[in-house]
Amino acid sequence: MSIKIYGKNPAIEILSTSKKVFNAFVMEDSNQDIIKILKQKEITIKYFNKHNFKKEFLGNHQGIVLEVEDYKTYELDEFLEMIDIKSNPLVIMLDGITDPHNFGAIIRSCEAGGVAGIIIPKKRSVKITGTVAKVSSGAIEYVRIVEVTNLRNSMDKLKKVGFWAIGTDLKAEKGYQDIDVTVPQLLVIGSEGKGISKIIKDNVDYNVKIDMAGKINSLNASVSAGILIFDILRKKS
Amino acid sequence: MSIKIYGKNPAIEILSTSKKVFNAFVMEDSNQDIIKILKQKEITIKYFNKHNFKKEFLGNHQGIVLEVEDYKTYELDEFLEMIDIKSNPLVIMLDGITDPHNFGAIIRSCEAGGVAGIIIPKKRSVKITGTVAKVSSGAIEYVRIVEVTNLRNSMDKLKKVGFWAIGTDLKAEKGYQDIDVTVPQLLVIGSEGKGISKIIKDNVDYNVKIDMAGKINSLNASVSAGILIFDILRKKS
Repeated sequence: MSIKIYGKNPAIEILSTSKKVFNAFVMEDSNQDIIKILKQKEITIKYFNKHNFKKEFLGNHQGIVLEVEDYKTYELDEFLEMIDIKSNPLVIMLDGITDPHNFGAIIRSCEAGGVAGIIIPKKRSVKITGTVAKVSSGAIEYVRIVEVTNLRNSMDKLKKVGFWAIGTDLKAEKGYQDIDVTVPQLLVIGSEGKGISKIIKDNVDYNVKIDMAGKINSLNASVSAGILIFDILRKKS
Repeated sequence: MSIKIYGKNPAIEILSTSKKVFNAFVMEDSNQDIIKILKQKEITIKYFNKHNFKKEFLGNHQGIVLEVEDYKTYELDEFLEMIDIKSNPLVIMLDGITDPHNFGAIIRSCEAGGVAGIIIPKKRSVKITGTVAKVSSGAIEYVRIVEVTNLRNSMDKLKKVGFWAIGTDLKAEKGYQDIDVTVPQLLVIGSEGKGISKIIKDNVDYNVKIDMAGKINSLNASVSAGILIFDILRKKS
């Protein structure tokens, strides 16, 4: 399986890794610097004139599109063998996030925030698309994505091995600054519109809220995730 | 001057305020709930069939577009008269942010985070477009946007009345958790690619960094802004 990645920075990032690149599509008279790298790496380059390139590749491509091997995802059991529970890792579970920009920005925050892995449901969820990879600015190369068939069962499994499951809820009594970072944390991020699904909410160990000071008081899902992830990191260091 | 606002939630939010709506454009057989409000408020409704609506309004419109009065922005002097310096307010300055999604998400975080105002340069910067308003999810109605001709001069003016100017820099020695919230704070957010411009960087009182734990270690501009704004709010409460 392959996936198409659009844009200069994502291309440069990918070419600095060992990720397999099947083909490079380049708009004529553009991206000379990247073409140099492509030639060094002996990657097949397919040139298009401006008109045909724009017809073939919709969106913000900046004249360069790479066709690369699909991103590796992990099974939950496999993931649990890779992480060190004793280091009290933070794992993020995405429940209902569908916007690829939010998903990409969350991947980026997880990478920078030292998150051990991101759990997403196999069905009815975000997919790892080219947009997601692009928005993640290369971070997707370094973050473990765990695809599971059932979020509830996965949560139970993590709880059994020592994780505390934490939900986010505007009406929670606890503030996010009270998250206990001396135990492994499973933090569930819900969708902006609907929040966390009932079955998950009923099974977390506790909920936290982000105290706000305005009238509308709603945050972009990736911004809330970033606030929580970096406050946990702040308390750990 | 008017501006077109796309989408259901932004429309509902606007209709709950006293903001002047000149026209509503609705796709046939959609948005019955919003049409009801439009009729109550005696707003002119222009119906389009599906085909013509999609031709007229590109983007994520959800069948409803409002033409509303342009957002009010403030002059710096006017703004300074409106705020209470003694309450140690937080003011955000955007230096080089051009992406409307980032600007919209930052407005949203500022509203929820109790930020007193956002300073943007009149030239070479984000404009308050329909996309910005939509991404802000209505928050733009409640956040003061201050347009200035020169960021450097505005910074000096704020410093004179007691603000401490704080930049963000990956190489700073101070962490963001060390921001002094017992004085008025002017926090400068730079663009993702280029950071803060030299003339601004040379004139801040101090820089802070966000400590990270990954390999790529770059954050979406609106996520970094959110982390800083909410850590300041956390320390104030």
